[in-house]
Amino acid sequence: MPVQFICNRIIHMDITSYIEDNRKKIDGFLKKYISAKKRNNDCPKELAEAMSYALMAGGKRVRPILAIASYEAVGGRSKGILNVASALELIHTYSLVHDDLPAMDDDDLRRNKPTTHRVFGEATAILAGDALLTDAFHIISTSDGDPKKLITVIEELSHACGPEGMVGGQEVDILLEGKKGSKKDVLYIHTHKTGAFIRGAVRVGALMGGASRKRLDALTEYGEKTGLAFQVIDDILDITGTKAEIGKSTGADAAKGKNTYPSAFGLEKSREIADNLIKEAVHALADFNKNADPLREIARYILSRRN
Amino acid sequence: MPVQFICNRIIHMDITSYIEDNRKKIDGFLKKYISAKKRNNDCPKELAEAMSYALMAGGKRVRPILAIASYEAVGGRSKGILNVASALELIHTYSLVHDDLPAMDDDDLRRNKPTTHRVFGEATAILAGDALLTDAFHIISTSDGDPKKLITVIEELSHACGPEGMVGGQEVDILLEGKKGSKKDVLYIHTHKTGAFIRGAVRVGALMGGASRKRLDALTEYGEKTGLAFQVIDDILDITGTKAEIGKSTGADAAKGKNTYPSAFGLEKSREIADNLIKEAVHALADFNKNADPLREIARYILSRRN
Repeated sequence: MPVQFICNRIIHMDITSYIEDNRKKIDGFLKKYISAKKRNNDCPKELAEAMSYALMAGGKRVRPILAIASYEAVGGRSKGILNVASALELIHTYSLVHDDLPAMDDDDLRRNKPTTHRVFGEATAILAGDALLTDAFHIISTSDGDPKKLITVIEELSHACGPEGMVGGQEVDILLEGKKGSKKDVLYIHTHKTGAFIRGAVRVGALMGGASRKRLDALTEYGEKTGLAFQVIDDILDITGTKAEIGKSTGADAAKGKNTYPSAFGLEKSREIADNLIKEAVHALADFNKNADPLREIARYILSRRN
Repeated sequence: MPVQFICNRIIHMDITSYIEDNRKKIDGFLKKYISAKKRNNDCPKELAEAMSYALMAGGKRVRPILAIASYEAVGGRSKGILNVASALELIHTYSLVHDDLPAMDDDDLRRNKPTTHRVFGEATAILAGDALLTDAFHIISTSDGDPKKLITVIEELSHACGPEGMVGGQEVDILLEGKKGSKKDVLYIHTHKTGAFIRGAVRVGALMGGASRKRLDALTEYGEKTGLAFQVIDDILDITGTKAEIGKSTGADAAKGKNTYPSAFGLEKSREIADNLIKEAVHALADFNKNADPLREIARYILSRRN
């Protein structure tokens, strides 16, 4: 066994390098995708620029990295995973562009930069979002891999990000803005708006890696817990973070009357909930070997993140 | 040979019945889809209502019918085609909901009814569009059929409706609003905004039907010509139609400074162009047998349509 691995097991693997290495691979894929888009005469220049602006704004690539880590946890080996994982970032980006629109969350700043509609106008922002969502399915459908697997991936992803998943969560989030939702409402919003897609990203990686039913179930639990924890921490950072750290104004949730975990449970209780969720997520991977270390570390990393 | 067929060949088949029968089948599928959505507790009620309102507003179902007719023209036989064809209507509906938004075409009326955002608000309309687009891919990925075929269908459709297709056409349409575009611009808008998806619908049917390369090429030409003719006639009807016929205010294109065929080529020349396109579309099917009669008649029907 290489020394590196022994060290990893003892002192925890170097998750920062793991995330950085994979982020570079994903960014490399996305750059190629966007370059091709800009060179294609059938794609209007303004649209390609808006898609590029939104997609290359310095995202953390959490969902693609989770998909790759999940894929590796079940011993997957093929090239197609990078394409499929990167496609998740197109869907995530489309959701941010649409969520930021004046008719939705009306945000002017995202990752310390003006939001897409502030730069390109609302019409182009709506269409750039539509284009990114549509292209995500195009990237998956043209990826290397068994067509049966790719179809299952599309089934999974379109469910996770559709009206019973991410879009449904965003709808309830908007509908209940300024109203005091119940704890059940807040749970619905978080498990759907953010949780469903993160769970989906983990499942997509597992499906591409040919996971057994038992392993898929365990990874699903990991994805569910991690996804919910991710949004709870997002809510906490909106209160405790700085503008420089989170890339947008702090206190925005409270100002908009958003239903968040801190608003429903209080800040301390929310921290405790996030902490427990991450413990449960790591516990769900108890039967996995060292290949699941990145997933374990990503969960801990999410808990400690500052942006 | 049954008498019906002989009659069809002599006096032209009864295209009105053909369209009506298929429209009913497609509406049946869409009704079931929407009922399931409304019953699903994971899908917010308001969102399901908005999706239902937009989808069941009495559309002509042109794209699904073209897909079915194209499928039948190449002798396709399987159940999956109804699902796949109906999914096209979800994509068409999403595009209408988004196009009607205040930031886009700002339309209050569609098919003689208030547009989706006028009834449900802008945020829900944006999300209903996103949900319909996402669900279209879910329907296809869960359809009966060879996964390899379904993946090809998704590749085709996501290209036809993405930034190099429908979304690209809409972007240029909006960008050039109020400006005098060149004839080349108008051709780009029409072949992309409407043409690409109609061409895609015909190709999707052919792919599901297992068309040979030669037949796919012929159907692609048919789809291209028919798609362009469809939009040219739409432009003409915006000038010559009545509000009752077209379901929205007439003269809207001119009022908005849209770049249309009549604005670029004049009304008479546009009629002549549409007429020639339909002739060329029918000619592209010269080597097809009677199974392609519905496609031939739909092309003629499009030329004579009043709404």
